[in-house]
Amino acid sequence: MSEYDDLLAFERGTRALGEISGRLGWDRETVMPAAAAAQRAEEIAAIESVLHARRVDRRVGDWLASIDARDLGEAERANLRLIRREFERASRVPAELATEIARATSLGRDDWLRARADEDFAEFKPALERILRLRREEAAALGNHGGEPYDALLDGYESGATASGIAEMFVAMRPALIALIDRVLGASHQPKRLDHTFDQDVQVRLSREIAGTFGYDFSRGRIDRSVHPFSSGSGMDVRITMRSDPRDPFNCIYSTIHETGHGAYEQGVSEKYLLTPIGQGASMGVHESQSRLYENQMGRSRAFTAYLFGRMWGVFGDFGIADADAFYGTVNRVAPGYIRTEADELHYNLHIMMRFDLERDLVSGALEVNELPEAWNSRFQADFGMSVDCPSNGVLQDIHWAAGLFGYFPTYTLGNVYAGCLYEAMRRDLPGLDGHLSNGDTAPATGWLRENLQRHGRLRGPVDTVAMACGFTPMTKPLLSYLEEKFTDLYRL
Amino acid sequence: MSEYDDLLAFERGTRALGEISGRLGWDRETVMPAAAAAQRAEEIAAIESVLHARRVDRRVGDWLASIDARDLGEAERANLRLIRREFERASRVPAELATEIARATSLGRDDWLRARADEDFAEFKPALERILRLRREEAAALGNHGGEPYDALLDGYESGATASGIAEMFVAMRPALIALIDRVLGASHQPKRLDHTFDQDVQVRLSREIAGTFGYDFSRGRIDRSVHPFSSGSGMDVRITMRSDPRDPFNCIYSTIHETGHGAYEQGVSEKYLLTPIGQGASMGVHESQSRLYENQMGRSRAFTAYLFGRMWGVFGDFGIADADAFYGTVNRVAPGYIRTEADELHYNLHIMMRFDLERDLVSGALEVNELPEAWNSRFQADFGMSVDCPSNGVLQDIHWAAGLFGYFPTYTLGNVYAGCLYEAMRRDLPGLDGHLSNGDTAPATGWLRENLQRHGRLRGPVDTVAMACGFTPMTKPLLSYLEEKFTDLYRL
Repeated sequence: MSEYDDLLAFERGTRALGEISGRLGWDRETVMPAAAAAQRAEEIAAIESVLHARRVDRRVGDWLASIDARDLGEAERANLRLIRREFERASRVPAELATEIARATSLGRDDWLRARADEDFAEFKPALERILRLRREEAAALGNHGGEPYDALLDGYESGATASGIAEMFVAMRPALIALIDRVLGASHQPKRLDHTFDQDVQVRLSREIAGTFGYDFSRGRIDRSVHPFSSGSGMDVRITMRSDPRDPFNCIYSTIHETGHGAYEQGVSEKYLLTPIGQGASMGVHESQSRLYENQMGRSRAFTAYLFGRMWGVFGDFGIADADAFYGTVNRVAPGYIRTEADELHYNLHIMMRFDLERDLVSGALEVNELPEAWNSRFQADFGMSVDCPSNGVLQDIHWAAGLFGYFPTYTLGNVYAGCLYEAMRRDLPGLDGHLSNGDTAPATGWLRENLQRHGRLRGPVDTVAMACGFTPMTKPLLSYLEEKFTDLYRL
Repeated sequence: MSEYDDLLAFERGTRALGEISGRLGWDRETVMPAAAAAQRAEEIAAIESVLHARRVDRRVGDWLASIDARDLGEAERANLRLIRREFERASRVPAELATEIARATSLGRDDWLRARADEDFAEFKPALERILRLRREEAAALGNHGGEPYDALLDGYESGATASGIAEMFVAMRPALIALIDRVLGASHQPKRLDHTFDQDVQVRLSREIAGTFGYDFSRGRIDRSVHPFSSGSGMDVRITMRSDPRDPFNCIYSTIHETGHGAYEQGVSEKYLLTPIGQGASMGVHESQSRLYENQMGRSRAFTAYLFGRMWGVFGDFGIADADAFYGTVNRVAPGYIRTEADELHYNLHIMMRFDLERDLVSGALEVNELPEAWNSRFQADFGMSVDCPSNGVLQDIHWAAGLFGYFPTYTLGNVYAGCLYEAMRRDLPGLDGHLSNGDTAPATGWLRENLQRHGRLRGPVDTVAMACGFTPMTKPLLSYLEEKFTDLYRL
């Protein structure tokens, strides 16, 4: 065996352990007994400690030093690049800190759940302070290469992205979004809201069916219920979760389509990359491009909602919306609201911009945890024109900070921007797309994504991955044009 | 921190990883997507390789060499003894062999499932040959200390037990069991069999209720379905599984009570031992004593079956058995049959004796895998007076060999013997026991077990654990007397 083969065999073991660690998280959110949380935190800390030790294992450094990349093919070089990147990042973080973060975030999630149930931020505050302190330490250990500490964390989710680059993108998008929101909210034509109760078991059955419609492979995954929907795993075991609300079936259906996008992306990566560094999605931003494209550009399109309207009539009977055109409006109804995951396509990005600014200040130290609820509430009032009525509708709504995921939020909007590009390219290549979607046939679209993007996994960096699929460099314009066109039509502006 | 504290902190990490590995097995049997088997085998191999490396870690050897046990309390000394034992066992097995066994048994299970579904032993043969060869290598590496290779494997499940000791015990029990079986089968009074169909969802609901009746703590565990019922995990996350058969509700109910015995034992170990070597059942034999005592001495008693009869009428209505007395006979009906897990209390031990003799010969090399089906079938004919009609009713019925568990089977009968002793002691201490059981109140009995045996975990060796609880040295006589008395009464001999 060559040294590259030795390195890759070691890396396969590390990735297999990473899959196990991820599945422990899945288990915790879906099937874990209530009293097991503390023991589980110890288990997660134990495996994360093993993972950290492997990521900084001296043998990896030795292999990296002695392998000549010129002898390798494209996939091998990409694997080597990713192993080097991870080795260098991991080597900067002390083992105790990595273990402490794993433990604190595992426990933090329980404090967050309790605080959210009790509507009391104070119950979550000590955990969040500890998690933020640890992640600041991690950012300092990683170093910021002339940027700001936040960059070090962001880079863990989106290789090459920086806070200043994200901020610049947000500044460019924000006026167009706000202008469009103002026009939409002032329009005389306003779609109806749903006003009906929907059997939750039927919602779940229909959502499972729709996951299949979007190409989710149940032989390589499963769907369970959890408080916050998520996707987990790669390769041959990619699981997603859903939740339901009797008053709002779109919560269940569209979060399932969203997670199906994540899951189908991992399932779509070439099997020959299984358990290697390139055998996963290119980045969180590219991941979100898939989930958001499945959910919005496809799932909320006029064409697909016509199909979904028929399926909903089929399983729920008359639910108070008369025709597919009205249903398209209802699905895409624009209104400010507290909850990010339920936001329409226009407000969604405002939710992200707000979280990005807050967490950037938290990481830099410009904002402290005890000031966070007030900062959240006043920013929300300014951006959405509503005052937050309770913490679960405000600062306690997302699991991200409890999970330590500072630097993750901007990848959602980056994903929207990438989705805009991919959708433009897909429509260029698939002129009959709407006809297929209106028959509930997503195969041409999901096949296009699998062929042009998903199967390549992490072979290239995020921007190159999207650029190769689209045939052009990613930019904000396609998303903004898509939104302008869609909502101008829908609201008869 | 003292060196003992350092050692124990390391050991807690190892045990946490062991819990994770065990839960991967649970996941595989209950919720894993169908196509994930190969990836799962690689994951299990990866974590078993980590576990093996930790078990033989040089630091453990250094700590063991330098800690003075005289400075420690009883629990600490017991932990040290168990760590030393495991270190010495693990150090004798090469890492590649340990990893290879983990991989082969993970894949072997799939071959076994397929062969069993196809009723074709040949499909399982290569996997079984590989597993047996690896376990023989392991036995050779472990050394047999003047005994036979089988002892090295048996010792992994039952510390201190030997093949010759087990064989001696079986020889002593066998004539009494066969004589009793002959009298029972020749009796003029024969209980009725069930002849009814039982809704499987109702069976599952009732079995879950009965698990609670026997003290299973759902906040620290869960019950799912699997092909072969099992118990998994320790401490705060102890899960059990069940299966059901529309014609035979006792399959579901009594295998659930059996697994509840295992699960409640782990849940009953003192919380202060959590994730330490003594924080688990004393041995497989002692484990089986709990599961068999819950299932048989308690669950199949005249007193408890009177309660169960009422519950079954409550949920199923008339199922063709007229009164509690007839029901007691039906539950305890003695008849030769193919399947070990469905065997009555008398035939059960014959199933074990047969498997023990076969696997002892497989390990010694006196029997080869290609001779196994014929050896199984002729022995079964001799012991049970029936010829095996298909492999799933014969050599392919149990998962144990596919999982590599050579040396495990005799612990079942050892458990029966221990259960006989514990039941005798329990009745001595709890004169009102039958009254409680006939009202579905198991708390005095399960409380007695928790107080006298379960909470101590692995503080002592298996024989001492049982002896301390009973107040006398374990022996076969209480089990044989219990069986003689029970079946003489039941069959009006």
